[in-house]
Amino acid sequence: MCRWAAYRGEPLYLEELVTSPKHSLIEQSHCAVRAKTATNGDGFGIAWYGDRPEPGRYRDILPAWSDCNLKSIARQIRSPLFLAHVRAATGGGTRRDNCHPFVFGRWSFMHNGQIGDFEHLRRPMETMLDNELYSARSGTTDSELLFLLALQFGLDRDPLGAVAEALAFVERLAERLGRPALVRFTAAFSDGRDLYAVRYATDWKAPTLYAGPMGSSGGYCLVSEPLNDDDSAWVEVPDGSAIIVGENGVDVRLFGTADVAMAPASRLFSG
Amino acid sequence: MCRWAAYRGEPLYLEELVTSPKHSLIEQSHCAVRAKTATNGDGFGIAWYGDRPEPGRYRDILPAWSDCNLKSIARQIRSPLFLAHVRAATGGGTRRDNCHPFVFGRWSFMHNGQIGDFEHLRRPMETMLDNELYSARSGTTDSELLFLLALQFGLDRDPLGAVAEALAFVERLAERLGRPALVRFTAAFSDGRDLYAVRYATDWKAPTLYAGPMGSSGGYCLVSEPLNDDDSAWVEVPDGSAIIVGENGVDVRLFGTADVAMAPASRLFSG
Amino acid sequence: MCRWAAYRGEPLYLEELVTSPKHSLIEQSHCAVRAKTATNGDGFGIAWYGDRPEPGRYRDILPAWSDCNLKSIARQIRSPLFLAHVRAATGGGTRRDNCHPFVFGRWSFMHNGQIGDFEHLRRPMETMLDNELYSARSGTTDSELLFLLALQFGLDRDPLGAVAEALAFVERLAERLGRPALVRFTAAFSDGRDLYAVRYATDWKAPTLYAGPMGSSGGYCLVSEPLNDDDSAWVEVPDGSAIIVGENGVDVRLFGTADVAMAPASRLFSG
Amino acid sequence: MCRWAAYRGEPLYLEELVTSPKHSLIEQSHCAVRAKTATNGDGFGIAWYGDRPEPGRYRDILPAWSDCNLKSIARQIRSPLFLAHVRAATGGGTRRDNCHPFVFGRWSFMHNGQIGDFEHLRRPMETMLDNELYSARSGTTDSELLFLLALQFGLDRDPLGAVAEALAFVERLAERLGRPALVRFTAAFSDGRDLYAVRYATDWKAPTLYAGPMGSSGGYCLVSEPLNDDDSAWVEVPDGSAIIVGENGVDVRLFGTADVAMAPASRLFSG
Repeated sequence: MCRWAAYRGEPLYLEELVTSPKHSLIEQSHCAVRAKTATNGDGFGIAWYGDRPEPGRYRDILPAWSDCNLKSIARQIRSPLFLAHVRAATGGGTRRDNCHPFVFGRWSFMHNGQIGDFEHLRRPMETMLDNELYSARSGTTDSELLFLLALQFGLDRDPLGAVAEALAFVERLAERLGRPALVRFTAAFSDGRDLYAVRYATDWKAPTLYAGPMGSSGGYCLVSEPLNDDDSAWVEVPDGSAIIVGENGVDVRLFGTADVAMAPASRLFSG
Repeated sequence: MCRWAAYRGEPLYLEELVTSPKHSLIEQSHCAVRAKTATNGDGFGIAWYGDRPEPGRYRDILPAWSDCNLKSIARQIRSPLFLAHVRAATGGGTRRDNCHPFVFGRWSFMHNGQIGDFEHLRRPMETMLDNELYSARSGTTDSELLFLLALQFGLDRDPLGAVAEALAFVERLAERLGRPALVRFTAAFSDGRDLYAVRYATDWKAPTLYAGPMGSSGGYCLVSEPLNDDDSAWVEVPDGSAIIVGENGVDVRLFGTADVAMAPASRLFSG
Repeated sequence: MCRWAAYRGEPLYLEELVTSPKHSLIEQSHCAVRAKTATNGDGFGIAWYGDRPEPGRYRDILPAWSDCNLKSIARQIRSPLFLAHVRAATGGGTRRDNCHPFVFGRWSFMHNGQIGDFEHLRRPMETMLDNELYSARSGTTDSELLFLLALQFGLDRDPLGAVAEALAFVERLAERLGRPALVRFTAAFSDGRDLYAVRYATDWKAPTLYAGPMGSSGGYCLVSEPLNDDDSAWVEVPDGSAIIVGENGVDVRLFGTADVAMAPASRLFSG
Repeated sequence: MCRWAAYRGEPLYLEELVTSPKHSLIEQSHCAVRAKTATNGDGFGIAWYGDRPEPGRYRDILPAWSDCNLKSIARQIRSPLFLAHVRAATGGGTRRDNCHPFVFGRWSFMHNGQIGDFEHLRRPMETMLDNELYSARSGTTDSELLFLLALQFGLDRDPLGAVAEALAFVERLAERLGRPALVRFTAAFSDGRDLYAVRYATDWKAPTLYAGPMGSSGGYCLVSEPLNDDDSAWVEVPDGSAIIVGENGVDVRLFGTADVAMAPASRLFSG
């Protein structure tokens, strides 16, 4: 089980969420007090938005808690919008290309969860990608592929719709192949302007997602698990929801794949 | 808390103790079922004896469970005498030079435990080393330094005596500096002929040490924790003991620092 | 430009070809005296055959000359058949999965050269792979993909024929896509019994390939460039040749793609 | 031979000096057109000053040209004062702790050159350090040790004087030990306010040092070798010089060790 934290608000030093001694993502990962799987030592990554339209990114395969570069970078960089992820590999080897967040153009994306039977779905999923996105695939995880599928299905145009479509595609693909459709998906993503998160699973067992205000001027933090013991500071986002943190605050919506039209998937399925 | 396993007997593929799917050192580290500290993701190492007098060694800072090289090497190499270690850093950064086993000439050494107040003892400990051993220091751990001190105090001549002297030196050094002497030391080491292990602590809280027969022809395995759930296969070696696995089987002795003469330490303390 | 060396003969310590101070592959790479491109710092790998049918493998992304693990492993392991490669990245990021030799089952493969316009040919090349081989793809290099294509086309059944077919497929694919077909390919590969090498290019500018006897009992070494200054010890294998080192010595043959039948490629081209 | 570049002036994206496609430090290192030693693949590092008194730092042991993290970080971070270094190991293994720049408090330091006979001088040099600086030593290079000695001798109080004293100490130490004193030292260092560089050697063969204006508002760049082919843009700083880039522009001074008083060294030598 991976862990992640994302922030949108007044510029904040990354270290406050990522590496500070108490209650940060890294500390939590090292101690892993609440998690079912104890270790998160399969790499980490951060993506932050600064002066450029595209995010900066730093990721490595060391355990996050032993990386001095991360500590120094997180202490120097202040950003109004960033994502941080600590990985527990469920599939895909331990290598930089498999570490979240994934980045494409101005988009960043990170994920906790899994696609059941991914080894059988991988190839037809990759077949759906246009050449540009196919070439952009550099790792072997289901997470990166879901991100590329969402880009394929219009992440730029309709972020939540495109993600729903990518998930719906996977579900239907599994059914077509006569396999049970299992998707668990708790993800955060951003275009540098708004911060999105989705909690969704076909079996209503999506990994947890919490939201909490941060700072004095309307900032928000989204996390896979509360970063400290003050549970009252965090609100659990229910399964089947999407959350958008934008200029005007937080917006929570229902999220599902039931109503997704078959348009793009039909390319593959119509054959 | 680190974990380790050592073997002496008929040539055995390293994978049987190190990387095999069930009940190996790596699997145990990843799951960490019995350990107080959950994670052992701060690097690993193996040292094995083959055709050469000095051991071969492979170590890296990745979590052991995600290293494909380790899996392949452990599957190919068969050795009558080897040491394997998985690290949970208590001090000293995560880098190859801090990964066990340490090697010097034909000696290999690995350790689970700690020296209390090491940051204050480190420099006078290093001062004791002859130039050759001082130059050989490449990391920053207390473990490597204990190994070098044991070499300094005659590991070649009297292995267990030299280790006792190194530990006694640390205890007396702490006392001289007006600090409580705390040493916890469960270590294995070898010269390529015999396999030694020591379990000792100033506070009688040394990390555990177990021994068990392995294979059909008199092989023995020493481990920091049992490698499988069949507890009857393993005998706990009590605190204050040393164990020697040699050509003629296993020999267990009392081990302590009380009777260590002050000869070498006096070099430092006589000032 | 990569460099490589391969050996078949009496068991030899890997270090004699790979890491010894003078005239080894590593030393040559560091100094790069003859090479057009000066640096070979983008990773390295070794594959050797021992007791198992499949080879052992060790590869990493450090410059080969600074890897202590490599030095130790090459000093311990003795093998009658091994491949060693030092990489200068022409495409595909610097990561372990892109380091040669590539291994599948009992086969190992390494390559110096390139496919022109690979970014446009990659996807249709991957499309040709059966599901098992498609899943085995873990990196992004043209070299790994040529290896998988050769496996697809029957490397097990007819090693040189399958490689010729893989190259012919790439040439015809480029033509179909209206692009100039450029393949430069100097590769070595083995099934653990025989050692094969091919030097071939569509423009007759294949990277060099040399062969030389090694040791006193009929061993042979194949190298991308002579390992020492005694040029008389090495015979250049001409462009358009294949060489087989087997139980009965060395066999050199003409090698080309002109006569390759269209059978497997037709699967793709017939549409 | 290492390469480095340092900048002080209007905030500049690091990529302009470090990773941009043409004429940057990285490109130069990869191609190594003018250097005597061809390769600089033994790691790299950057230190930059931002909002904090102490610099941020990122370093790794990969060849600089293949590190995606470096590319992304250098593209995002803009700084008025930064140091960048590409390493060719002359001594000290390839590991992060041996990569420049070294950092202590608000000071950063990087170096090209060497101390002759360092293996014999190392221990007495380390002996000179106060406990705090002794504990701060984490690598094994002569460069880091020169930096710590300069800190010991008052880098905070009198930067150029302290560096001269550190070098003088090494020279006299070599003489005391009956060895020829050889120091070649082309270094840059900063406290976050001013940028200093020194070119000095006992045999007048110090590695080169160039200075050139950069940008439109009085920025300056100091480099070990010109970053582009427009030689007219760079002025060579002569051997035996120090250069200070501060708020009021550039100041060049004579630099030597002849006039350094023996005060601190006498601590060691008086015995």
